[in-house]
Amino acid sequence: MSHRIIVDVMGADNGSGVVIRGAVAGARRSGASLLLVGNRTVIQNELEDLKTKGLDIQIEHADTVIQMNDPPGTVMKEKNDCSMAVAVRLLKEGRGDALVSCGNTGALFTCSSLVLRRIRGVRRAVLAAVVPLDNAFVICDAGANTEATPEMLVQFATMGSIYAKDLLGYANPRVALLNNGSEENKGTEVQQKAFDMLRQSRLNFIGNCEGRDLPADFCDVVVCDGFIGNIALKTIEGMGKLVGRVLERIFKKNPITMIGYLFTRRSTNAVRKQLDHTEYGGAPFLGINGVVIKAHGSAKEKSVTAAVRQAVNCCEMRLVEKISEEIAALRTDGEGNDQQKG
Amino acid sequence: MSHRIIVDVMGADNGSGVVIRGAVAGARRSGASLLLVGNRTVIQNELEDLKTKGLDIQIEHADTVIQMNDPPGTVMKEKNDCSMAVAVRLLKEGRGDALVSCGNTGALFTCSSLVLRRIRGVRRAVLAAVVPLDNAFVICDAGANTEATPEMLVQFATMGSIYAKDLLGYANPRVALLNNGSEENKGTEVQQKAFDMLRQSRLNFIGNCEGRDLPADFCDVVVCDGFIGNIALKTIEGMGKLVGRVLERIFKKNPITMIGYLFTRRSTNAVRKQLDHTEYGGAPFLGINGVVIKAHGSAKEKSVTAAVRQAVNCCEMRLVEKISEEIAALRTDGEGNDQQKG
Repeated sequence: MSHRIIVDVMGADNGSGVVIRGAVAGARRSGASLLLVGNRTVIQNELEDLKTKGLDIQIEHADTVIQMNDPPGTVMKEKNDCSMAVAVRLLKEGRGDALVSCGNTGALFTCSSLVLRRIRGVRRAVLAAVVPLDNAFVICDAGANTEATPEMLVQFATMGSIYAKDLLGYANPRVALLNNGSEENKGTEVQQKAFDMLRQSRLNFIGNCEGRDLPADFCDVVVCDGFIGNIALKTIEGMGKLVGRVLERIFKKNPITMIGYLFTRRSTNAVRKQLDHTEYGGAPFLGINGVVIKAHGSAKEKSVTAAVRQAVNCCEMRLVEKISEEIAALRTDGEGNDQQKG
Repeated sequence: MSHRIIVDVMGADNGSGVVIRGAVAGARRSGASLLLVGNRTVIQNELEDLKTKGLDIQIEHADTVIQMNDPPGTVMKEKNDCSMAVAVRLLKEGRGDALVSCGNTGALFTCSSLVLRRIRGVRRAVLAAVVPLDNAFVICDAGANTEATPEMLVQFATMGSIYAKDLLGYANPRVALLNNGSEENKGTEVQQKAFDMLRQSRLNFIGNCEGRDLPADFCDVVVCDGFIGNIALKTIEGMGKLVGRVLERIFKKNPITMIGYLFTRRSTNAVRKQLDHTEYGGAPFLGINGVVIKAHGSAKEKSVTAAVRQAVNCCEMRLVEKISEEIAALRTDGEGNDQQKG
């Protein structure tokens, strides 16, 4: 059965055109239908220039946009008619099976949590970003919650493991806690308690992970609060960009080094592509009652395409149902078993 | 006048030999005298194989070692006769002008803070690591304090600025707060309050800095707590290592790409060296009543050499006196003006 993916085409750094073109390509590759949300005229103009024959594309008009620097709360108040809020409500009403947005992360998180609600038993939803280095791994939380309790971290690990297993195909994902040292007594009280709880869990917990372990195929799921996850993820992105500049410097130094480039072009470009974060797909919010994918604000066409395909995969893998089952099991085990906060 | 640098030769990952050889090379280059602390037999054996003619090298025997996984507190209790504790006491007694150690960071921080005491008005000392990317910058705190108040962050910024100015030569160092977004309302209450205080300070505060800005010549001093600083610094180190592997992959793929290496060898090796953290020098604890340099646990000979030279520079620049003056001025301004905690 074809899935319908709702795409918020507004609020991306590179404009609506990139998002629309990426979404159409994603629909074509995955066989999905689309429901594009944003300024109708802009969308129609863009679609006229594209091959859309055979595709099922609907449009829902929304005129206002939530900006990157708007406080997240405005999406539910002053700007609750913005394309993002409209898109989330359409998902709630069942007009689509999943949602992709390149907009303001905090606003998307707030709006999704409040409109779609969290899965029963989930304290806080989490942004699960995949970092495709030598070993692709999931950062949970990549930026949704600036602080996290040990109980939240255990839930992040649980949800991240399901994602790593079903979407990345790891049979028994290795879970590690991002910490300031490898020894078990490292970090603040939060990390120390989380370490104990993770060790006692049914997860494949392999211990603490340091920043330098991240690019070294150390684990498949990295658990941390969203502040730390944001710093780690963006530092990796920034260093990836530096590698691009470094390669330029190596090869463009003089005519001799440029000859070197001719001999290594293919492998050089493969590496550059692997480390370019704008090539990444999107990151789902796990723990929400619905599939919501946050694509990068500065996403290129290709990454929107990847995000649409990811949305389809999440639907096919029944991600929401699986998380619901695992969180229920966690509660039966007594882990993270206290009342859910509003 | 020649400075005497006390070097704790024990507790490094690569053994005492590396530390001793690095220290001797550092003494030769900077004209410093040495006071080596550790097992006397080991030190004497190592020195026999080195050219030490014309150098003033003293030895102080200490037999026990604080290990990397020892809780920091043990340095003051069970292991207060270890080489690190002996070295710190020798500095206190004026037997040397500065101290270099590759040992356990937490133990060195605890021991230095308690034995040497903090400079009057300093809430907590801070580990200031220099990251020599395209633009060398200082991370304050690189790992000494797992948590920090806004007042502490302002002091870290003040001390880091002095270091960036006097040791790195930046006329008016750009200070930025490491945060999960560039907008001023980002982060937790700690970052939000620190942002306001930094803006009102006399520092050259340029706003928030994201992880991806770190390698992009964005600022000269990055302020954060030691947990976040540790994650950021080690992620940079890990990505630097990845670049080394990436270059191998580019050039060693097949005979054709290996020809490419021949044409780019010099620039490739320069880049590899720049991104290799074992080439870095050490990081001083700023705010301590004395010059204490923490060299990397896995330091190579060259980085110990660099750390010894750095120790000499700190003495020549009168780093401790300058920090003392600036912190006193900060207190007069009313910034960070509350009672000092034990």
